[in-house]
Amino acid sequence: MSSANPIPYKIFLSENEIPSFWYNLRADMPTKPAPLLNPATCRPMTAAELGRVFCDELVSQELDNDTRLIPIPDDIRDFYHMYRPSPVVRAYCLEKKLDTPAHIYYKFEGNNTSGSHKLNSAIAQAYYAKKQGLRGVTTETGAGQWGTALSMSCAYLGLDLHVYMVKISYEQKPGRKEVMRTYGASVTPSPSDTTAAGRAILNAHPGTNGSLGCAISEAVEYATTHEGYRYVLGSVLNQVVLHQSIIGLEAKAALDKYNVTPDIIIGCAGGGSNLGGLIAPFMGEKLRGEKDYRFIAVEPASCPSFTRGRFAYDYCDTGEVCPLAKMYTLGSQFIPSPNHAGGLRFHGMSPILSQLYHDGMMEARAVEQTSVFEAAELFARTEGILPAPESSHAIRVAIDEALKCKQSGQSKDILFGLTGTGYFDLSAYKNYNDGTMVDSIPTDDDLSQAFAQLPKVPQ
Amino acid sequence: MSSANPIPYKIFLSENEIPSFWYNLRADMPTKPAPLLNPATCRPMTAAELGRVFCDELVSQELDNDTRLIPIPDDIRDFYHMYRPSPVVRAYCLEKKLDTPAHIYYKFEGNNTSGSHKLNSAIAQAYYAKKQGLRGVTTETGAGQWGTALSMSCAYLGLDLHVYMVKISYEQKPGRKEVMRTYGASVTPSPSDTTAAGRAILNAHPGTNGSLGCAISEAVEYATTHEGYRYVLGSVLNQVVLHQSIIGLEAKAALDKYNVTPDIIIGCAGGGSNLGGLIAPFMGEKLRGEKDYRFIAVEPASCPSFTRGRFAYDYCDTGEVCPLAKMYTLGSQFIPSPNHAGGLRFHGMSPILSQLYHDGMMEARAVEQTSVFEAAELFARTEGILPAPESSHAIRVAIDEALKCKQSGQSKDILFGLTGTGYFDLSAYKNYNDGTMVDSIPTDDDLSQAFAQLPKVPQ
Repeated sequence: MSSANPIPYKIFLSENEIPSFWYNLRADMPTKPAPLLNPATCRPMTAAELGRVFCDELVSQELDNDTRLIPIPDDIRDFYHMYRPSPVVRAYCLEKKLDTPAHIYYKFEGNNTSGSHKLNSAIAQAYYAKKQGLRGVTTETGAGQWGTALSMSCAYLGLDLHVYMVKISYEQKPGRKEVMRTYGASVTPSPSDTTAAGRAILNAHPGTNGSLGCAISEAVEYATTHEGYRYVLGSVLNQVVLHQSIIGLEAKAALDKYNVTPDIIIGCAGGGSNLGGLIAPFMGEKLRGEKDYRFIAVEPASCPSFTRGRFAYDYCDTGEVCPLAKMYTLGSQFIPSPNHAGGLRFHGMSPILSQLYHDGMMEARAVEQTSVFEAAELFARTEGILPAPESSHAIRVAIDEALKCKQSGQSKDILFGLTGTGYFDLSAYKNYNDGTMVDSIPTDDDLSQAFAQLPKVPQ
Repeated sequence: MSSANPIPYKIFLSENEIPSFWYNLRADMPTKPAPLLNPATCRPMTAAELGRVFCDELVSQELDNDTRLIPIPDDIRDFYHMYRPSPVVRAYCLEKKLDTPAHIYYKFEGNNTSGSHKLNSAIAQAYYAKKQGLRGVTTETGAGQWGTALSMSCAYLGLDLHVYMVKISYEQKPGRKEVMRTYGASVTPSPSDTTAAGRAILNAHPGTNGSLGCAISEAVEYATTHEGYRYVLGSVLNQVVLHQSIIGLEAKAALDKYNVTPDIIIGCAGGGSNLGGLIAPFMGEKLRGEKDYRFIAVEPASCPSFTRGRFAYDYCDTGEVCPLAKMYTLGSQFIPSPNHAGGLRFHGMSPILSQLYHDGMMEARAVEQTSVFEAAELFARTEGILPAPESSHAIRVAIDEALKCKQSGQSKDILFGLTGTGYFDLSAYKNYNDGTMVDSIPTDDDLSQAFAQLPKVPQ
């Protein structure tokens, strides 16, 4: 643990080593992710149909299963320069604390004001909207990481932004809202009276706390009924996994410098954007038969899409206004028990990752909340970074794998994604510190009921 | 603004370039800072007297006006490796926005979970306490940056920590408190019934919101009445400026790599630890006649120690239990109007900086709150970092100087200290965003009344 160690605590690439291409994992997948379907016709969504909601260039990225490398425009790279490259950190202090022969590395994406990796795709999506000559974009946000990232990107480019924020988060997370306002975004608690969808829900359920599904419906409605606006989304979509590939490309370049080949690569999985981005170039090598890696997706036991879900076509939103995606899903009507990993509470999973998991290319593990916070606290105290609850799912499994190495005496190289910081998640930490946090997982009956509502489309 | 630019956005030193010595500016000062006085005897505090409150090694650093370079112990350097070196950032985006020929650089100390530069001294003070075989340390915290930094350091070293947190902050900043608890600190709202000082105040003023002065009294009392404890302090003291010299040493090394010599160096000034640390090696060159620089201390107009204070011996705390320090002061009984730059609300100033200012080696400027937040918002939107209100005082003057360059056509190199992030200051941003923020400066009468209560000691 001294400066004589050949691998530094933090491996930084130089700025001219920031990747100039995103890597499109789909190009190397033998079985491509299934196409999005129009729920009315059950036929693949066309570019024209998608273009009513999304920017043209993003539609083209969404549908492109073939182009392996997609150039990152200079203006986006300029923005990346402000907060990238992000470091790969060797967790020397954690290794010492665990007394493990394993070598633990983490790619840290939290050192920017959005507090997470979301900024990587937010700037890309905002850029293409600006390039198309649009006035602005709309989106929904729950916990607020995505909304913050998008507000930073829109402020930088001079683009208008309307965020529909789930009402309960709007009230309980005033800090996040204020960051978005400081970046010039207009933030509306959802449901609101600014859209037909919002008014309908307010009429039917006066006093409702809102939901992500409702906020999506409002954001999509605003975008499609106002000239010069499009809707953008921070996870699940193929385009988002594409943009997030910069995480894995940088991580691989940094480790390659020190001839480190990770044996295990671990990421938390909600909609799958961070995990997909982190593993992309490594998975590419595995798909091409060049190298082998173990990949572990970590999800909350309260929302276990991979480990207990179905691989089926389903709505991406509870409001059922979005296209159908083929993915591991718990059913769009599934409501996870209250838990604090806000960003991992999505009922479905990226179609890309779903296909790879279905094809046996990766593993998945579900972990319970209290064990996640136990890992988070240990990490904070040894590595000096207060992790986001979402990221802490990956920390939990990285620690578990390192402890297995301690038992077996093996010195494996473990890489995990530390997607963000927990500065706006302190009510969850308070629950843990107070000893009032409880675990809760869905029963088989809960899941059967949700599965019964899966849409009746040809699978 | 492309990658062809010879100076990168972020200049990182490599880890083996992290300084191995702190630089003791006092060694190069022709007039040394005046010694701390025992208020009972009005004679200089001896090492034995100071040793009842502070750790032995820190007492020795406090009193050492001669040793120019003081080695940083390996264990502290290991900890520094976790979050240092911090980058010097070239503010290309801000320069472009201002359309100025000036080159703006900032040394960013906020990329760690404490959110500020405070960690640099916290780990040093905790280390020496541990080395002395102590069980723990005590401190006070207002806004909570110092308490957070110290809790991280104590968790890392396995040292007990009792924080007395000003009651109003304890209630209004639950996030900060939770971070400290996550790092294992015990946090007590002050005044409390755990000390005689606290009980006396509770009796005299039931329902009081507390004050920093009261919290200091309680922390000192706890440390001096419990076996194996000492008290530690995050600013003002000579030892703190010493530890913070790592900011300036790294900044200078980074700029030297690109042959950049700053014309103007700007820092916000509360107790003076960040400003003292940032300017230390540059001021050393100026004192030794090797180079010339302009230094600007920026303070809030609501608490203008340098620009409207007296250079006199005064108490460091409102409770008048601490030694007397000769410094620019508004009087220990001065109460600044409510403003949001919590860390800059101290009535006095580092004795080192006070002497240098008195000797004409640096300038000072007082700025009003709304203009500070205007600068903060501009900075956040262009440079992508939400700055702490304290740090934003420096941003304000850096922008002002860059705009002067625009008028004059001069291309000056400006360096400022970005001490921290504003993630826990969003109620202040809310005031600004809502348009309800007001400026308020003390009247001459306010100051005269406070000066009248300065202690009657030989100056």
